[in-house]
Amino acid sequence: MTRRTSKPLRIGKVTVGGDAPIVVQSMTKTDTRDIPATVNQIKELEICGCEIVRVAVPDRQAAESLVTIRQNVSLPIIADIHFDYHLALAALKAGVDGLRLNPGNMGDREQIARVIAAAKERDVPIRIGVNAGSLPASFQPKAPLAERMANMALEQIRLMEDLGFHLIKVSLKAFDVPTTIQAYQMIADKIPYALHLGVTEAGLPRTGAIRSAIGIGILLYQGIGDTIRVSLSAHPCEEVFVAYEILKSLGLRQRGPTLVSCPSCGRAEVDIITLAEAVSKRLKKISKPIKVAVMGCVVNGPGEAEDADVGIACGKGKGAIFRKGKVVGTVSEDKLLEALMAEVNSLDKR
Amino acid sequence: MTRRTSKPLRIGKVTVGGDAPIVVQSMTKTDTRDIPATVNQIKELEICGCEIVRVAVPDRQAAESLVTIRQNVSLPIIADIHFDYHLALAALKAGVDGLRLNPGNMGDREQIARVIAAAKERDVPIRIGVNAGSLPASFQPKAPLAERMANMALEQIRLMEDLGFHLIKVSLKAFDVPTTIQAYQMIADKIPYALHLGVTEAGLPRTGAIRSAIGIGILLYQGIGDTIRVSLSAHPCEEVFVAYEILKSLGLRQRGPTLVSCPSCGRAEVDIITLAEAVSKRLKKISKPIKVAVMGCVVNGPGEAEDADVGIACGKGKGAIFRKGKVVGTVSEDKLLEALMAEVNSLDKR
Repeated sequence: MTRRTSKPLRIGKVTVGGDAPIVVQSMTKTDTRDIPATVNQIKELEICGCEIVRVAVPDRQAAESLVTIRQNVSLPIIADIHFDYHLALAALKAGVDGLRLNPGNMGDREQIARVIAAAKERDVPIRIGVNAGSLPASFQPKAPLAERMANMALEQIRLMEDLGFHLIKVSLKAFDVPTTIQAYQMIADKIPYALHLGVTEAGLPRTGAIRSAIGIGILLYQGIGDTIRVSLSAHPCEEVFVAYEILKSLGLRQRGPTLVSCPSCGRAEVDIITLAEAVSKRLKKISKPIKVAVMGCVVNGPGEAEDADVGIACGKGKGAIFRKGKVVGTVSEDKLLEALMAEVNSLDKR
Repeated sequence: MTRRTSKPLRIGKVTVGGDAPIVVQSMTKTDTRDIPATVNQIKELEICGCEIVRVAVPDRQAAESLVTIRQNVSLPIIADIHFDYHLALAALKAGVDGLRLNPGNMGDREQIARVIAAAKERDVPIRIGVNAGSLPASFQPKAPLAERMANMALEQIRLMEDLGFHLIKVSLKAFDVPTTIQAYQMIADKIPYALHLGVTEAGLPRTGAIRSAIGIGILLYQGIGDTIRVSLSAHPCEEVFVAYEILKSLGLRQRGPTLVSCPSCGRAEVDIITLAEAVSKRLKKISKPIKVAVMGCVVNGPGEAEDADVGIACGKGKGAIFRKGKVVGTVSEDKLLEALMAEVNSLDKR
């Protein structure tokens, strides 16, 4: 995993690209004009680990709400703009930290030039956010979708560069995972800018997390990507949770505990699934990156439990408790949860 | 995605490797000695799309149960054997379609030779299932884990080849995703055999599905892998569901409907998350691979709804219904679910 070199950008206090950690983004799902609801959701997002928040700006009133929203939160705010360049100008005036424009629907060259001039004046980065669902049918209709998406972004990048603007981030999102991967691969070597990754409209968490993990995961493994947003039909904190699980799986970020647990099989003599669920629930209160293993039998149990910070390797109706690779006790099945959590809590408090 | 060339094998009626579709496996979690419970779970697994089922054989009675279990199910059965080569011999005698042996704990060369002779006689393939958690600490202690796993498998492969046995499948599972990927990459070009992919002890579904999707997804995208097993601390049908979602996301298999749904944002004027959840619930009854889109607004809505077999693109309190790319009606928010499902059901019945 050698990371692609990208020009770092500042979105408010957060650096995206260069050597900065992969940044986790999400988007509010409240009505932007409902200022208390939007502020509240941004605060929830900050607590769950979101680092940059995007807010839809469908109309003038939403743009004007950004002034108060921004004053009441500490996360950097990106205004998501479609169709009307006036809204981009209004969002910049409201003090947003970044803009996302959709080149598929953003008006003519002159209108875009006005937005770019205003962003340049304020040093506000712009994401060129191409989306398969809003690519004009007339744009290179015979080319494959991934190529059309990459070329649409390249055209917009050239326009911005011609105007002396280089605070650029790019995304190329499709629902189809291979299309998304191809589009990013096509553009990765052609531009020096930071890339924002996502699989668009990935659906509900049960399926959308899988689809997002594969698309975003494959690109990150190729060293492509500086910030990610998981799109799920769910509360935005679920998007942030999935984003961190993707980054944790690849060893790119740490956040909270990690539970290693065996799938159970005909060999298990303890109810491992119920135990793992109970441990997982208790781990929600733990913030340190502690690795916990809940293992059902003697095949892989001692190995995994030894490798974790705290672990259980179960046998017939009982389990051995491991701390940092050493057995510290053996307890009966009914005491496993408490014994394991006592070790976890003691590590968490250190 | 050019697929690695592998020697196809037959596990009962199912071909693994070569040009065969990527095969979905799971494992029973019942006590193998409880024959009715195990038969029942294998039947559930068959209904949910599992193609090969593995069964743990911890003792003699479990091995003997395989005779009756096998007579009562139609899925091919692989016996999972650790520690005791007698159990492998007993499982072969019971008529299993495949064996999984763990070279980390399988006894001496002579014992393994006896198992191999018995498998050869019956034309039963053997998976060499290396697992990070059960790799002997004394095996190449200074080498990196991925290399140790690959070398352990290579050693076992050579032993089998020396004995004239070539019905081999290999797996190299770790909890750590980059380690798992490296291990498979190391062995992929060195052997001609089919590869069974998995990320071991991946945990509960919410996190384990993500971890599995990244590990298995990256390898499949590199063309590596002939059969997959998702290991989750959950009912085995959830493992099968996740396996198919991984394969569907990469366009490698089709199974059941696919729901494209937008994450919702401050632009949505319909409760998209609730609608998507309701549609998803109704889609459980649909077996055909129908693509359904539930989209919140005019930005990407029409594009995605047009691209799906059936879709909704919502506006202010209402939505346009799309069938195969054409708008077939516009209905108010309270009628969206029924109107969409009427189109889905009519496609499903065709």
